[in-house]
Amino acid sequence: MQVTIIGLGLMGGSVARDLRRTGFATGLTGVESSQEHVRLALAAGLVDRVAPLDEALRHTDLAVLAVPVDAIVRLLPPLLDRLPAKAVAVDLGSTKLAAVTAVSGHQRRGRYVALHPMAGTERAGPSAATERLFEGQTAILCDAAASDPDAIERALAFLAALGMRVARMEAALHDRHAACLSHMPHMVAYALALAALQEERDSGAMLDLAGGGFASMARIALSAPSMWVPILLQNREPVLDALALFAAQLESLRQALARNDAQALRDLIAAANTVVK
Amino acid sequence: MQVTIIGLGLMGGSVARDLRRTGFATGLTGVESSQEHVRLALAAGLVDRVAPLDEALRHTDLAVLAVPVDAIVRLLPPLLDRLPAKAVAVDLGSTKLAAVTAVSGHQRRGRYVALHPMAGTERAGPSAATERLFEGQTAILCDAAASDPDAIERALAFLAALGMRVARMEAALHDRHAACLSHMPHMVAYALALAALQEERDSGAMLDLAGGGFASMARIALSAPSMWVPILLQNREPVLDALALFAAQLESLRQALARNDAQALRDLIAAANTVVK
Repeated sequence: MQVTIIGLGLMGGSVARDLRRTGFATGLTGVESSQEHVRLALAAGLVDRVAPLDEALRHTDLAVLAVPVDAIVRLLPPLLDRLPAKAVAVDLGSTKLAAVTAVSGHQRRGRYVALHPMAGTERAGPSAATERLFEGQTAILCDAAASDPDAIERALAFLAALGMRVARMEAALHDRHAACLSHMPHMVAYALALAALQEERDSGAMLDLAGGGFASMARIALSAPSMWVPILLQNREPVLDALALFAAQLESLRQALARNDAQALRDLIAAANTVVK
Repeated sequence: MQVTIIGLGLMGGSVARDLRRTGFATGLTGVESSQEHVRLALAAGLVDRVAPLDEALRHTDLAVLAVPVDAIVRLLPPLLDRLPAKAVAVDLGSTKLAAVTAVSGHQRRGRYVALHPMAGTERAGPSAATERLFEGQTAILCDAAASDPDAIERALAFLAALGMRVARMEAALHDRHAACLSHMPHMVAYALALAALQEERDSGAMLDLAGGGFASMARIALSAPSMWVPILLQNREPVLDALALFAAQLESLRQALARNDAQALRDLIAAANTVVK
């Protein structure tokens, strides 16, 4: 199958590695605006060639949009205009309502399948691309009824090549869950990092003294603004709702501590201990 | 050297493994109130024998207090009373001001060295004990001037056997830094877990769909109340201060999102990206 990957960063580059390794792709064409990323991607052999979007789509069977979510919304309609008749487009964005809304009236809507593979790292760029990044993780397939059955089938084969489990969900519910389980926690991690940096300035706290707990939370705070600002803005209302939910729970813990209430702290922490992961 | 380890959980058990592996301890005696932990610790060969505190201290060269911080404060004064003349006591607690205050007027204060090895996992009990848990991590040695020089020397040899780097600090400053880099982040992780569990109840969010980012933050929320409630209560004021610092940073992020301010979000996230770990 001829595959076109638009965006050769961590996600697009990792997809390329798996599609080549599994034989799913017989040809891989990249579309990438950064000349530095083009150079790195070709040097690493992530794709066979890099081409402008129009040319890259001409003989493609599957187009994978692996760019930030603001670019997905901008590129998806013209991409559907140019896609060959039997070809399929998927995206890998962390928000789904804005993407499906951007093409809801498009006459070729059926060729698009909205995906969110729940995987990634805080690193970015083609050099961060790794094999098996997605293996064993879950991909959410949204609003399947709006896609053609053969397009769904090709998207599922694509996810199978990545080794992913699949869950189906409406885009709006996906965005709500993603706000609570991913987008809001990123805001929290950024705030933790900013608080630690402020403490370092104010009292000379040495961040390199921090143990594994801080490191595993602060790791998330290394995620880049180019990817995350568009996610947060597109999913603003659900993220603000999730922040309110979090703030209320933190306030319960804070109040229990402020009033020296050991029993309330024990109960809250014991409840938190039941979290699955 | 004869070593007595009081508390055979994750920390005490991991210390036992390293002291035996490195030959630092020629004999290891455990003190442990849970019969289940005694059984597991002896079955795993963590210590040579288990004995009541008085008996275990009789011929010891080094006593290691590896119990929750409320028990450290309670046990430290009678332990110093019973310690052989040349022996040394250290603790591994995550708070230090309460421990040094508990023995500040003690006539044998010099035999005690206050330590906080910044390492651990969210697991607990003797079965969680692992070799090299502390290797390459930092231990904070507090209020060194109040300890006898030969006691400091033995504590440093103990930390070297664990493979730890050492930083020295006053207990009050330690507690402030630990509040910001460890204790407050635990409160945040508990609140994140509680928010996710509430979302699961309210809207059926499937927590097992969450990606690695959530997992690496929520992992901290598995830490047990028996260890963490005493830490939070002993370090209440610094933790409340650190929570206020965190809440102010989160509020800046929230406001930028609420007013759709992409530039402010980019600036805040770019600043958070500079966090060391």
